[in-house]
Amino acid sequence: MANDRLARAGALLDTLSVDALLVTNGTNRRYLTGFTAHDHAPDELSATAVISSDGVTLFAPSTNLPWAESEALPGVTVRPAERKWTDSIAELVKTAGWTRLGFEDATTTVAVYNELRQALDSQVSLLPIGDATDSLRAVKDESEIALLTHALRLTDQAFMAAEKRIRAGMTEKQAAEIIAEELRRAGSDGEAFPTIVASGPNAAKPHHAPGDRTIQEEEPIIIDMGALHQGYAGDLTRTIWFGQPSGQLVTMYRTVQAAHDAALAKAAPGVRGIELDSAARDVFAAQGLEHYFVHSLGHGLGLRVHEAPSASMRSRDTLEPGHVVTIEPGLYIPEWGGVRIEDVVLITEDGAQNLTSSPKRSVEATQEKNA
Amino acid sequence: MANDRLARAGALLDTLSVDALLVTNGTNRRYLTGFTAHDHAPDELSATAVISSDGVTLFAPSTNLPWAESEALPGVTVRPAERKWTDSIAELVKTAGWTRLGFEDATTTVAVYNELRQALDSQVSLLPIGDATDSLRAVKDESEIALLTHALRLTDQAFMAAEKRIRAGMTEKQAAEIIAEELRRAGSDGEAFPTIVASGPNAAKPHHAPGDRTIQEEEPIIIDMGALHQGYAGDLTRTIWFGQPSGQLVTMYRTVQAAHDAALAKAAPGVRGIELDSAARDVFAAQGLEHYFVHSLGHGLGLRVHEAPSASMRSRDTLEPGHVVTIEPGLYIPEWGGVRIEDVVLITEDGAQNLTSSPKRSVEATQEKNA
Repeated sequence: MANDRLARAGALLDTLSVDALLVTNGTNRRYLTGFTAHDHAPDELSATAVISSDGVTLFAPSTNLPWAESEALPGVTVRPAERKWTDSIAELVKTAGWTRLGFEDATTTVAVYNELRQALDSQVSLLPIGDATDSLRAVKDESEIALLTHALRLTDQAFMAAEKRIRAGMTEKQAAEIIAEELRRAGSDGEAFPTIVASGPNAAKPHHAPGDRTIQEEEPIIIDMGALHQGYAGDLTRTIWFGQPSGQLVTMYRTVQAAHDAALAKAAPGVRGIELDSAARDVFAAQGLEHYFVHSLGHGLGLRVHEAPSASMRSRDTLEPGHVVTIEPGLYIPEWGGVRIEDVVLITEDGAQNLTSSPKRSVEATQEKNA
Repeated sequence: MANDRLARAGALLDTLSVDALLVTNGTNRRYLTGFTAHDHAPDELSATAVISSDGVTLFAPSTNLPWAESEALPGVTVRPAERKWTDSIAELVKTAGWTRLGFEDATTTVAVYNELRQALDSQVSLLPIGDATDSLRAVKDESEIALLTHALRLTDQAFMAAEKRIRAGMTEKQAAEIIAEELRRAGSDGEAFPTIVASGPNAAKPHHAPGDRTIQEEEPIIIDMGALHQGYAGDLTRTIWFGQPSGQLVTMYRTVQAAHDAALAKAAPGVRGIELDSAARDVFAAQGLEHYFVHSLGHGLGLRVHEAPSASMRSRDTLEPGHVVTIEPGLYIPEWGGVRIEDVVLITEDGAQNLTSSPKRSVEATQEKNA
């Protein structure tokens, strides 16, 4: 598996016409080297990797050296980084006689670029490669699909357990704490991202940090959460309520559910990301609600919560077997609140497999029960 | 308080001779605007801020706009970001007629720089400012000291509760889970960084992710953990053991404790970071052990786990009242294990106040008890 990754990275070198590639993106580093450390910040990297046809060299500072050595995949050589790690890179480039070094301009900082430019001989070209290395991660291999499927199963388990315990009268923070507990109980390695619990008017904010607001009856509560399993992220959104849903909530929920179903039905290899987004957006437009859908339909999911392929109005991606994407239409009405529903699908050879199994609310059932 | 921050940022503009400053560092953004969102990655910012003498403009994408508006401090204007947020910055620069725009080269990526360069009129200069904005955060104000003190109190509480429950025979992961539980129970908002539980030979790795190794008697167990309180990080390291400590452990522990005490005694305003580091390093050198102290003595602590001032061999910082720094000497012996002891001190007008209250092991007491 790891060898396959390095083989594909090697092919990328040819495509880009570079001798070697400097990896500053922490997720790509993990994917290609196996080293699981996170970066504190763009100016505080846990390690840096250089990919060439000879294999991968991973430079780690002294504090991380034994850790990196213990996790490095076959084909990865771990070496101690100089005080300025850019000096280590320059030394390697010089020794190998490389003249064309690719770098990830989306994550390499200007300070690092300048340091590197100064350390390298003037005849060495530094070539920005955009998101070429990220794209290596878009199609998931079998081991990754197993890990993602497990992360999503843990997410479902935790959501279902938490939903039974969350009540009107609790604060958003208390609900988020229950979710954190259930994620741990399910066996998650933590949270893939800060859990969102957005109640009532707060649900009008697509991203909302759980606060001290008390959850009321009749109003929408958006829960967006994900388990983490060996680095792979789950992602799930459900909108729930207590008591009788208000009339507006019933209308909104039905519309979002219809948009969700339309996009889900469309998911298949060969379909463009933009078409997936449109499938949902058209449902909203038919009701004049498209301006309340303020984000994209979905995104790829893997070692990172947002990755390729994109399913947005501006996506240039086309779905392929092995892609894993979220389908998460939503409507957000300022002052009132919002509704979002999110499943995750795996694109297969002949369609898509829904990897999410958390039940969705049924507006009809609720109404009957309350009738 | 917030106004004081903006006033100091304004003074920085004068010092740097720039009309305005682009803030891409997520921690500085939070410090100056109040917006608490984290960045997914350097190529996926939650918002960007521009500081000028007129105040702060915070550009947020549509998904984060209501959240940013709800948290923005006085003096901060929140505006929706264009699809390419660099276009929003360029528009603002043009409207204001600025010709000198400073930027944080340590966190601004090459891709963003190039986008911005293209969007800006050619007569506008883009000036790298290094870590000038980070330095605004080094001296803590009263509200920050209260938040940090609380984060450290929660850290102590959780450590003491966890220490009572951790036993030989548990795995490192199980011990880490107990720590996570006790952090939550204490009221922490989460973990300031991934908790380290490194037992036996694993303790030779300064940074080690808790694994499936079973904790044994007689060996060192390094625990490095921190609570999180309203964004402020706790940081604490203790080395513990079960049963009778081995002879080597007793020697190592005594030496690290002596190095720790030497640095602690030195902490005061006017002392240079490098001197603080040397105080500990000299103790190790006297026993020929300096090569096993593979990291710096300490670092500033605040909204970020590692920040100014630095207490390393290469530090250029001088301690000032209001600085909060870790004192964490350690020794790491490959194959055998390691010892690290860390307290956090606040530099005061006439010395330093130890903000950490977790008890340290006493080698003497253990030996008597086991005698």
